[in-house]
Parts: sequence; C-alpha cells; structure tokens
Amino acid sequence: MLNPLALQDLIDRALEEDLGFGDLTGLSLDADATATFALNARQEMVLAGVEVAVQVFRTVVPRTNIAVEAHDGDRLGVGAPILTVSGTARGLLTAERTALNFLQHLSGIATLTAAYVAAIEGTGCTLLDTRKTTPGLRMLEKHAVTCGGGRNHRLALDDGIMLKDNHIAVAGSIPAAIARARMVAPALSRVEVECDRIDQVREALDGGADMLMLDNMDPAAMREAVALVNGRVPLEASGGVTLETIRAIAETGVTYVSVGRITQSAPAVDIGMDAISRP
Amino acid sequence: MLNPLALQDLIDRALEEDLGFGDLTGLSLDADATATFALNARQEMVLAGVEVAVQVFRTVVPRTNIAVEAHDGDRLGVGAPILTVSGTARGLLTAERTALNFLQHLSGIATLTAAYVAAIEGTGCTLLDTRKTTPGLRMLEKHAVTCGGGRNHRLALDDGIMLKDNHIAVAGSIPAAIARARMVAPALSRVEVECDRIDQVREALDGGADMLMLDNMDPAAMREAVALVNGRVPLEASGGVTLETIRAIAETGVTYVSVGRITQSAPAVDIGMDAISRP
Amino acid sequence: MLNPLALQDLIDRALEEDLGFGDLTGLSLDADATATFALNARQEMVLAGVEVAVQVFRTVVPRTNIAVEAHDGDRLGVGAPILTVSGTARGLLTAERTALNFLQHLSGIATLTAAYVAAIEGTGCTLLDTRKTTPGLRMLEKHAVTCGGGRNHRLALDDGIMLKDNHIAVAGSIPAAIARARMVAPALSRVEVECDRIDQVREALDGGADMLMLDNMDPAAMREAVALVNGRVPLEASGGVTLETIRAIAETGVTYVSVGRITQSAPAVDIGMDAISRP
Amino acid sequence: MLNPLALQDLIDRALEEDLGFGDLTGLSLDADATATFALNARQEMVLAGVEVAVQVFRTVVPRTNIAVEAHDGDRLGVGAPILTVSGTARGLLTAERTALNFLQHLSGIATLTAAYVAAIEGTGCTLLDTRKTTPGLRMLEKHAVTCGGGRNHRLALDDGIMLKDNHIAVAGSIPAAIARARMVAPALSRVEVECDRIDQVREALDGGADMLMLDNMDPAAMREAVALVNGRVPLEASGGVTLETIRAIAETGVTYVSVGRITQSAPAVDIGMDAISRP
Amino acid sequence: MLNPLALQDLIDRALEEDLGFGDLTGLSLDADATATFALNARQEMVLAGVEVAVQVFRTVVPRTNIAVEAHDGDRLGVGAPILTVSGTARGLLTAERTALNFLQHLSGIATLTAAYVAAIEGTGCTLLDTRKTTPGLRMLEKHAVTCGGGRNHRLALDDGIMLKDNHIAVAGSIPAAIARARMVAPALSRVEVECDRIDQVREALDGGADMLMLDNMDPAAMREAVALVNGRVPLEASGGVTLETIRAIAETGVTYVSVGRITQSAPAVDIGMDAISRP
Amino acid sequence: MLNPLALQDLIDRALEEDLGFGDLTGLSLDADATATFALNARQEMVLAGVEVAVQVFRTVVPRTNIAVEAHDGDRLGVGAPILTVSGTARGLLTAERTALNFLQHLSGIATLTAAYVAAIEGTGCTLLDTRKTTPGLRMLEKHAVTCGGGRNHRLALDDGIMLKDNHIAVAGSIPAAIARARMVAPALSRVEVECDRIDQVREALDGGADMLMLDNMDPAAMREAVALVNGRVPLEASGGVTLETIRAIAETGVTYVSVGRITQSAPAVDIGMDAISRP
Repeated sequence: MLNPLALQDLIDRALEEDLGFGDLTGLSLDADATATFALNARQEMVLAGVEVAVQVFRTVVPRTNIAVEAHDGDRLGVGAPILTVSGTARGLLTAERTALNFLQHLSGIATLTAAYVAAIEGTGCTLLDTRKTTPGLRMLEKHAVTCGGGRNHRLALDDGIMLKDNHIAVAGSIPAAIARARMVAPALSRVEVECDRIDQVREALDGGADMLMLDNMDPAAMREAVALVNGRVPLEASGGVTLETIRAIAETGVTYVSVGRITQSAPAVDIGMDAISRP
Repeated sequence: MLNPLALQDLIDRALEEDLGFGDLTGLSLDADATATFALNARQEMVLAGVEVAVQVFRTVVPRTNIAVEAHDGDRLGVGAPILTVSGTARGLLTAERTALNFLQHLSGIATLTAAYVAAIEGTGCTLLDTRKTTPGLRMLEKHAVTCGGGRNHRLALDDGIMLKDNHIAVAGSIPAAIARARMVAPALSRVEVECDRIDQVREALDGGADMLMLDNMDPAAMREAVALVNGRVPLEASGGVTLETIRAIAETGVTYVSVGRITQSAPAVDIGMDAISRP
Repeated sequence: MLNPLALQDLIDRALEEDLGFGDLTGLSLDADATATFALNARQEMVLAGVEVAVQVFRTVVPRTNIAVEAHDGDRLGVGAPILTVSGTARGLLTAERTALNFLQHLSGIATLTAAYVAAIEGTGCTLLDTRKTTPGLRMLEKHAVTCGGGRNHRLALDDGIMLKDNHIAVAGSIPAAIARARMVAPALSRVEVECDRIDQVREALDGGADMLMLDNMDPAAMREAVALVNGRVPLEASGGVTLETIRAIAETGVTYVSVGRITQSAPAVDIGMDAISRP
Repeated sequence: MLNPLALQDLIDRALEEDLGFGDLTGLSLDADATATFALNARQEMVLAGVEVAVQVFRTVVPRTNIAVEAHDGDRLGVGAPILTVSGTARGLLTAERTALNFLQHLSGIATLTAAYVAAIEGTGCTLLDTRKTTPGLRMLEKHAVTCGGGRNHRLALDDGIMLKDNHIAVAGSIPAAIARARMVAPALSRVEVECDRIDQVREALDGGADMLMLDNMDPAAMREAVALVNGRVPLEASGGVTLETIRAIAETGVTYVSVGRITQSAPAVDIGMDAISRP
Repeated sequence: MLNPLALQDLIDRALEEDLGFGDLTGLSLDADATATFALNARQEMVLAGVEVAVQVFRTVVPRTNIAVEAHDGDRLGVGAPILTVSGTARGLLTAERTALNFLQHLSGIATLTAAYVAAIEGTGCTLLDTRKTTPGLRMLEKHAVTCGGGRNHRLALDDGIMLKDNHIAVAGSIPAAIARARMVAPALSRVEVECDRIDQVREALDGGADMLMLDNMDPAAMREAVALVNGRVPLEASGGVTLETIRAIAETGVTYVSVGRITQSAPAVDIGMDAISRP
Repeated sequence: MLNPLALQDLIDRALEEDLGFGDLTGLSLDADATATFALNARQEMVLAGVEVAVQVFRTVVPRTNIAVEAHDGDRLGVGAPILTVSGTARGLLTAERTALNFLQHLSGIATLTAAYVAAIEGTGCTLLDTRKTTPGLRMLEKHAVTCGGGRNHRLALDDGIMLKDNHIAVAGSIPAAIARARMVAPALSRVEVECDRIDQVREALDGGADMLMLDNMDPAAMREAVALVNGRVPLEASGGVTLETIRAIAETGVTYVSVGRITQSAPAVDIGMDAISRP
C-alpha cells in the first residue's frame, strides 16, 4: 500500500500553503450552508490521484459524503464523472483548488505515460520512469506513472545503485566502481551501470553488473549491445527519448526504455468541479 | 524577501524523499574525492531558482564552493553557464538531481510566463498567475512567475477575497456576498467578484467590489465591461487563455489577464551538470 | 474558515509543552473514573476561543461529551455557563489547564477589544489591530479581535504592504518606495504608506498609495489630513492610542484607528472549571 | 542551559506566522542596502528575552553584527540601550516585529514579577509562578519569571505531582491519593497536596505529602497551618493573590506564595527599534 | 496518563522509516483480502507495550478489530495470547514488524527489570532506572521499567537535579554546587548529589542536598553512609550493579539501587504473529 | 553517504526528550566555564556511531573542539581513546548522556555483529541483518551492522520485495504471488520468496523468484536446496540462528544467513567520558 502517513503529510502541506490563517472568502459564507459538487473530466485522460482528492476533501470536511465514480488507471472520455462530494459548502470550496491541483497534475502524468506506453505496444519493451520528478511529489508521481501503465525504475537513492559516468570517473574504472558498489548494496537491490559505448557494456558485464543502462546510444549500437549481452542481464535505453523516437528504440530488443518527460513535462489535464445542488 | 525558513523546509523535504536512508551509489565513492561541476543551459530559457539550487548544494555539502554565473530572471542562450560548484564529489552527486529538479521546473515556468508576457507587450495589460500551482511549491512557482515578468494575483486564501459563482450562489446575491466579505476582509486586502455577464459587472460595481474578474467573456463583452467600469476598479480577464488568444484579450483594455497554464503546464527546461575537473 | 490544521497544530504544541512524557498526577487516578465539569465565566467578558477549548478536550479525550453553551463574540455576565464536558476524569483534568489558558487569554483580548470598540461607537471609525501579537498565537489573537468587534489590519507580512519610515529611508523617497512596492504587490493586496507629516500625506497620495497611516499625529493634523485626502483613500490613525484618547482620534474623520494594546496587554479573564458530578 | 533546539523552534514558528511566503514590503527595498538599528527601553523595566531577540535577528540575517548592551534580569531606565544590530536592512526590518514581540512580552512578565517580589521583600517568603502561561510559550515565560526574581513551581505535568481537590475526589481520600501518587512519582520529584481546610493539612501531612498548597485560605488559617506543620514540609499559599494582598500572606510564615497573574496578565513593556545609520 | 500525542509521534516515525514510499510486498496482495492474526508469547516474559502495538495496527488500518488478551505488567508463560487482530490483510502485514519491534523491545526491558526486582525482594530497597535509554524511546522505556516493577529516577534533565563529580568540579565544591542548584530548582523537584566517599556524604548532607547517590561504593562504605545519614534523606546506590551483586547492595539499607542495564542491555523477547484465519 | 538531514533529526529528537525545557543541573554551572573530556572504551569492542556522537556535541555546543581518535569499524581494546572534546562545560555535560547513549548502543550492535561474522569466517557465506530494529533507529542500526562486517538485507518495505508465508496464503499460491509482485517491483529491486520446504523452493524457482529464503530448515534440507538451486539465484538461511548454530548453517553452501539478534538483543558496550582538564 502507498504510505498513508506520507500521503496525509503531503495533503496537509498543500492545504497549509493555500489556507494560511484561513479562507477569507469562505468566511463570507453561512457556516451551515451545504452543497453537492460533481468533478468531471473535461478532456480525454487516464485518471490518477482519486484517493488523494478524496483525502483532501475529508481533511477539510471530515463528515463529507463522497461517491467515487472512477478509479486510478481508468481511461475517461470528455464529461466522464470522477467524484460527487456533498457537505458544508464553505469547507468544500476551501478544499476545491487543492483537490483539483493534485488530480489535474497526477492525471496529466498518467495520461502522458499512457501515450508513451501505447507507442511501444507489442514490442515487449517496458516503459520506466526516472528521478526527474517535482520536488516533494516523488511518491505520487511514481504512482501516477504506474496508473498510466509504466513501471518504476527506482524510488529513491537508497533502493538501488546506479553508477553513472561521474561515479565511474571518481572510482577510477567500471570494475572498481562495481566492486565498491557490491559492498554497500543491500541483498535485495540491484547494481546498474551506465554505458555510453559497447566496450563499456562488455566491461560492466564482466565486472558483475546486475543491469545496464545504454545512454544516448543510437539504435544500431543498442542492437549490438542486445546481441552482446544476450539475455544475461536486463538492458535499459535512456536519453532524450520522445514520442517520435521511442518505438524504434523499443524495437532494438532492449528490456526497458526510460523517459524523464513523463514526470517532468506533462501538461495538467482539465477537470472541473461544478455545483449540482445548493441550499 | 522570500521566506528563508520555508525555502529550507522545501529543500529538506525534497532531499529527504530522494535520499531515504542515504545515497547507496554515493557510498561506493571515496569519501574524500573532490570535483568541480558546471551547470549549463541546454536550451534557450528564462532562469528561475538559482538560489534554490545553491541552497540544495549547500544543504548536502556545507563547505561547497559556488560561483553564481546567472541570476533569476536572466534570459539565457544555449550553453550559457549558470553555476559552478566544487567540493566533495560524493555529496555534490547526491544533491545533483534535486538541484536540477528545482531549477528545470522553475525555469520552465519562468520561460513559459515570459512567452505570454511577450505576447501582450505594448498593450498596457499585465499578466497574472492563479492558484493552479503544484501542491507544495506555491511559494517558488509564484516567484518563478515574477522572474518571467508576470505578476501574482494573490498568494493564498488568506490574503485576498475572490467571490466566485459558487460563493455568490451560497450567499444568495452579489451584494449580499460583498457585504459579508467586507466584514472579514483585512484592511489591506481587496475584494474581487467573478462576473460572467455584464449585468453582474454592474451589480458588483454598485455593491462595492474592489476588483472584477471577467470569466470566459468574449472580447466584445470584455470591451463593454471596460467601458462600463471606466477605470473605477481594475478588471481581470480569465478563462482558457492561450498564447494564441491572449493578445486579443489584452487589447480589450482589461487591466489584467490571468493564465493557469503558466504554472500548471510548463514543460521543464533542459539544464545539464557536467564534471569539469576530477581528482 | 479558520485553518483547521493550523489550529490542531497550536493545540498539540500547547499540550506537548504541558504534558512532557505524561501527566504524573493523572496517573494516580483510576483510569476508568469519569466525571462532568462545568466551565463558567467568573467575571464579565466577551468570549473568544470556545472552539479551541473544545478541540483541546477532544484531543486528549477523543470520546468526550461536550455541550457548548456560549459562542465566540457573546457578552457574558458573572456565572454564565460556557461549556459542560463529560468523560474520563484523568484526561479531562490533564486537558483543563491548557483549555483554560487558551480561553482566558483569547477572551481577555476580545474583552479589551470590545472596550475600545465601545469607546468609538457612533463615530463611523473602525478599530484595527496590529502585528503586535504573542509569538505563535497570531491566528487566534487576530480572530479574538474580530470577536470583540475589531477588524484585522493585515494578517502577516505577505498579505499587504506597509511602507514605514525605515523602508522609505532605505528606498530614498516616498514615490520611489511606492513604485518598487507596486511591482511586488499581488493584485489583491493594498500598498499603505506611513506618514508623520502633512507633506508626506500629499507625497504618498500623489505617488499612488492605496491607504495612508497617520503616525503619532495630533488630532488637528489628522483633521487636516482627512480634509486633504477627501475620501480618495482610507486613512489609519496609529501610535500610542489608549482608551482615554481613542474617541477624540476617531472623531477627526479617519477611517481606521489601530491599537497594539488590545493584543499585547490584555489581562486574562477569569474562567473556572468545576466538577458537577463525580464517580 | 535553556533547551537551544526548543528556542530555535519557537523562533522559527513565530517568524513563519509573520512571514508566510515572504515580506512583501521588504522586497521593495534594495537587496544590498545595510543599516544599523538600536533597541532601547522606552519605559522602566526588568529585561527578559535578550537572547531570544538576538536569535531572531540571526535567524533572518545570519551574518548580522550584534552588540548586547543589557542582559536578562537587568533593571533598565527610560532610554537604556538593549541591543545594537547592523546588517542587511531588508532582513533586519523583516525580523523587527518578531524580535520586539518576544522582548516586550517577556520583559513585561519579568517587570510584573519584580513588582511582586519587591512587595514581599524581607519576609523570607519566595514568589512562585503557576502553569497559567500563554500556550506555546511556557519555557520562555518560566524563564522570564526567574529574570524578575521569582522561582518556578513546576515546569510541566511530568515533573512534579500536585493533587488538587478534583484528584482527591476521584481517588476517594487524601491518603489514597498520596499512596497512588507515590507509586508513579520519579524519585527526584515531590508530591504536593492542595488543602482548603486545616483538617486536610493534617491529613496530608500524616499521609506523607512532600509539600502542601493552602488554597484560598485567609491569613489566620494560614498561620494556623504554619504552626501545625512546624517546618516539616514547605507550604505554598495560592489563590487570587494580588499586589495589594501578597505581603500579608507572605508574613504568615508560608514558604512560598504563587501568583498566576505574573504570566497571564502582564502588560507588554515599550521597547523601540530606531535606525541610527542608513546607507 | 502517557502523553498520547508523543506516543502517536513515535509510532508514526517508526512506520515512516519502515514504509518509505509504501509496502511493495503488500501491494502484491488483493486490496480487499481480510485476515485474523494472533500475537502470542513464545517465551516467559513480563509484558510491556500492548497499547503501543494496538496503536500501531490502528494507525495503518483504522478500522481493525482488536481483542486485548493481556496487559502491561502481566507475567506470561509460553504460548500465552496477547492480542488478536482482524482486518485488511495488506495493512496488518504492513504493520506487523513495527508492532512486534515495539512489543519485543519493551517487554524485554520489563522482563529484565522484573528479574532485578525479584533479586531484591524483601529488602525494602527499590529498583530505579537511569537516563541510559535508547535515543528516541525514553518515554516508553521508562514506562516499561514500571511494568517490570521498577521505579523511575527522573524522566529528563528538566525534572530533577543531579550534581555529578564533573558538575561539582566545575562549581568548585559540593556546597557551592548545591547552593547554585537551589536557585534554579523548581519547588517540586529534588536536588541529588553524587558522592564517591564518606566525607562527601557528610558535606552534601550539611550543604542541604535532598538525596544522595553513592557511586561505586563497596557494601561496607554504603553501610557507613546509611548509618551516617540516618534516614534524613534517601540514598541511592549506583555503579556497575548486576543481577549477581544487587542483593548485597540492597541489604546495606540504601533506599534505592539504580541499574543502567535494564534499559540498555535487555534482550528482546520472542513474540510471534500467526494467521488464524485467512480469506 | 548516510542521509545527513535524517541524522540531524534523530539527534534533535534524542536531545529534546532528554532536555525538555533545559538542563537544570547545567544551569547551576557558570555559563563561561570550559573543560576538556575524553571518551574511552572501557571494554573490547567494534566501534560504531563516532560521527553521531560528534554531531550530538556540535548540536549542543556549536563551537566545540573535537579530536576524533577512532573510526567506525575500528576494533578497540580496553582504554582505547575515541574522542576528545573541549568547550563550554555546561553544554558538553548536557550532551554527554545522549552522545554516550548513541555510541554505546550502536557499538554494541557492531560488536555483536563482528562476533557472528567471525563465526562464519572462511565459509564464503555472508551475514545479513533483518528489519528487527529498534523503532526510530533503523538507519543507524543498519549502518552499525556494516561497521561490524555484516551486510544489509533490505532497508525498508519500499526497497525490495519479500513474499512470506502469509503473503503467499493471501495471494493463493507462490506463482500467483510472484506474478503480482513482479508488476509492482521497481526495476532495480529483487523479489525474494520464503520457503519452508523443498517443494516450495522448486515452485519459487520456476515461478521466477530472484532470491529464496530458507526458513527454519535444518542443515540437511538446506544442503538439498543448495544442490537444487545450483547457483541460479542466491539463497538466504533464516530463523533462530545463534552464535552456536551459525557456522554449521553457513557451511551448507547458502549465500547468506540472516540474524535478528544482532540488532534486537545486542548489549550496550561500556564507554566512559572523563574530564581531563577543568577550569
């Protein structure tokens, strides 16, 4: 399960930054007035963050009544219902912007991820994300990637080892870097090595790497690496991948292709919240 | 000045989510090795977040040596230098991703904002942002907007009053809503009213609103509102504004035009960090 | 609405500082014993903080039974009932002091505020507070001021701009200070300028200030300023105002008079908590 | 030493509530302008909180230059210098209000405490404080009491046991309450019992109490209790004590007299911060 | 009562460190599957931490069904039931390790404490703990000591004064140290002095100490101290006490004997969690 | 590198729980007195936590002078020097207990781990730890294990997947559980399966597990599993392993053996802090 304490903490901080001392506009409403609002998709999208939005409303209005009409990972058309929320008008309007900000941002990531996944359908290659996430939202953005059909690469610096060119340069050589990494790697984590050239692929393989990243190689070089490795360890293609280039990369036979854009440059999707009954 | 305590808190949280128990890959490097890295623009951009990136490096490596070569608000060409950082290789590589995540995201917002500002140049109209920000990053994204030449609308729910259609519906009428808002408004804050039609503009003006938002009106209606109000209070145009439509809106004579896309859908810009000297 | 997360945080901190590792005295009581207690006014007062007190009891004893018998803003006579609370004796006695500390302090502010408001009744002038609040209690003390019939000036440094003599000196001149302030002011916030003399009033008015503070002027000077400004912007009188001097100031025609004493020097009112039934 | 981590936390929270996203007015100043300010007493007072004020300035402006000219516990006349601070004008003006709010509030408590201490001079009786403190400021207010010459009663619920009437009622009897309290009392803490009548004094003494509180007794009854106890345990007089009544109480021979007003109803003292040099 | 807010905070932190972004293994289970688990003693033990374990399960699975079958302080045989928990399998398995880690650690302390208490049974001497606790768990470990029949010495540095050899050396002499300690000691706290030799016992007694610690004295010296003090203040024996040596020490007539090992070197006890029904 | 922010947080919390409002005993010392103290090993040990102790002293006394004379992982004899610290006597004595509590606890774990590692020397088998750690200290205890020559199994629930009997039962079968785990596993993490019997070993191997845990198997069964698996995936032996039984287990040819006792039942080692110069 997603860490429920961390989720609540993210929601609290988002509300805090928007509320400050309180919602002055909400104060101008009758404290007892109630209302029902509907959240609907205003464009095609893959949904992510429904539970987050629900939790935002519950945090501000503990006794709100919520009907969940679509779930994370669902593909929605224009006008599709997402949530119906009923309760104190003042509180629901205070929570509205924060709930939508989460939902629009995370569904934007899931929607873009799904487009990349569709582009490599049938190749047997799997889409991975990166650590290029919005500061503070890593956990939710990694989740949104899985809603869109992608898979996580690693969650953070403490759950997998990735030796990049800079690490190798500081360590002196690929074998030296792998040997040191082995000593600190927990038994359930893998050691991956970034390779820019075929000779590095061979060196990393001989050095005992558990996985290889092919960085900014062209498809021909990738195919050569695939042949050389011959299934002994997984291969990840990386570097400037776009919707236009991803299929050719996937067809080289690499196990994974990783894309930073899905978390770093996904436009928010449009979701509306409209009153469907008022006092 | 930006709240320095809140900035440190944001940085700490971003590092925490990336570090977990620690950087396993960094542990495989010699603890004493030092290096110098250069951060450069890899595309044209308006810069935002330089101080944040500096603070990220200092948080992980307190005794790092940093040369700041470009400032927030600067317009950079491809290859332009941003920062040079020297210190413990292990720590700087641990901080790299978090520093870049802030810098690429905030500069992305500044760059898109600048494009909107350029589109209305010479009209006398000012670009405003909205509360459609990434949860947890409001303060920095509002700052990035100003780096791109935009102006903030309000920072949070406690520093300005905006009566939207839902508030007015719950309050019963525009004059009733304004009257209640007046009672809770701090003396240094303004009361703004959302208007969908010309008759509401008149009603809000008569009711004593300090500012009016024209929501999803077409340019003709906006021009009518501008004539009616005749400079008594500022007017803000809002609703689905794009780079294609913004100039026509600005030319109607409204004081402000607000755009959610600049904070919600700005693609990250590309910034690299490369070693320029190693042990 | 008041920020409910910030309120809970204030309560948690107050309890933490009083509880430490736990209430040793409470441990000497039978864990199952229950009791009912009444909170009553022991002097005339204007009430503030009832919700805070309720939330303190609920935080320590989640399943307490509470009857609210008076509300924030109510004017109470000696002996008037405020709350009746029933539940675990151990927990209610642990919470007692913290609940009373909030209630007595906030009602003290509301009561003193009401005295100042009464002193200017009928003049058309409105009482404002200042930022002279007890560190950590700003939000609640600002609320207590409104319970006593006063109005808030601004809540914090980020929701309104006040150019004081020191700011003007650093900026070089009143027009220079206003011009720079305009650039950073959110669209929904006002820019106020502190004036010690009539020529400054004129300069600030011409420079485009949205509001003027008349600092330590005598009533004659204030009257002159009122005539000069002639309703174009609101005027605030400030500086050493007491219950003795406030009416004469209000009668000069200023829009507002601000008083630091109401938050900074209000004596606590006396409220008791007595057992009305025990096991 | 005062807990330095807790002090920093209090300061951070006070600044956070005042700064929000940042000091908008400060932003209108040149970022490089420096200035020197003097903090002076504007009335007679006993000083408390100098270190707190210093720490507030250092938190906002790490490289400020501060000359400390008076110390906690010092008795100051009108115009006496307290601090001189030099540094970035923007930052010092941002910190000003928070620094003064601490200093004026704590010195107010020290000054009122000193008045009570003076009233019982020569009687051999010691002034104690209570737990009637401003929520969140317990640690600093207890310190301010000692600056004024008073002594702390207990700091919190976990460092001493005080059996009040309600506890005794729930426990069934004074001896039963003391017996249970003995079991949970740490070896370095005392058990005190509240007594309303002489027979309770006897019962508590026989039950093994380490200290007795005489609650709302008249001086004659107190004298009788003093004779009865005859030095075996300390006696504390409590309940509605004022500057008018305290000396007669102290003269009955009780060891301590405790006063809630010194922390709960102390008016802030007047301290100013004036520029003595500017750019 | 134990501070309920601090308890929740400890639990949240323990879960946070174990959960990170979430329980990946738990994610592989059906979100709706429910199960019932039994926690049983797998060795003889004195139980401590039942409420903590219950709260851990409730924090992860708010609607779990829990039957408490043994309480803190109970002496359990092999196989004795402690708790039965029913609810979402995913959540209960996520919480398992943290719940057991608390329960096994705290019961280990209670069990070792009980062994020391048994060793001095009938001597009239009381077992005390020390500040040698695991960082972050002081509150719970102090509680576990009382479950095992021991008593707390002091909880923290702010609720009792202990003058050790280093303090005395810095103060210059025992009387000087006691005199200064008297000035800062709250009225409900005691001042204890560490003595290595008989002449120090005399000096501390004359200086007005409230309690004496006999540090690393042999039984003969302790007996001499007991005779000298003759019941005027309590005496605490301390220093390298083991299960083998404690009875001889207790028989010297000292009031207390304190043991660091009970909190610092108690092996965890074995407690299992087994499924008793699954979907 | 170890997460420096998390380390500071642990230290702050440990100091907070010990300091409360402040160190009353320390307050009785002259604020200006300085001293030098030496920390020495009082028994043979493997050291862990030196950096933590250094950071504790620096947190309380920022300008302390520290000479580090032994490092984490060093094997020390009786009397071996660890640290020499000079600075304000008051602050260093306030920090003493917390610094020692960390150092004694972590070195206890490193020392016990080293004993287990010595017991399997030359077998080619590696010692692993478990998640049986003290709540709140996971990060440091995992580090202490590596100081003693052990290796970490996984750090937390989010960086590796371990399917235990309960997970398998809820999932329905080993292949079903592995299939679901594969979908959520990040690319850099491994999936391990707990096996109680040989047929489960075969099933897990066929199902695609990355690693197998042999739970409570006897050495003969382990040998059979080793032969069956034949180097395709690593094998971990687990369950009730002691210093007496570990070598026989290691000699079966398993890759790893994991031991909960090293973190859960390590007695603290004895380290002293003595004054070597005083004012």
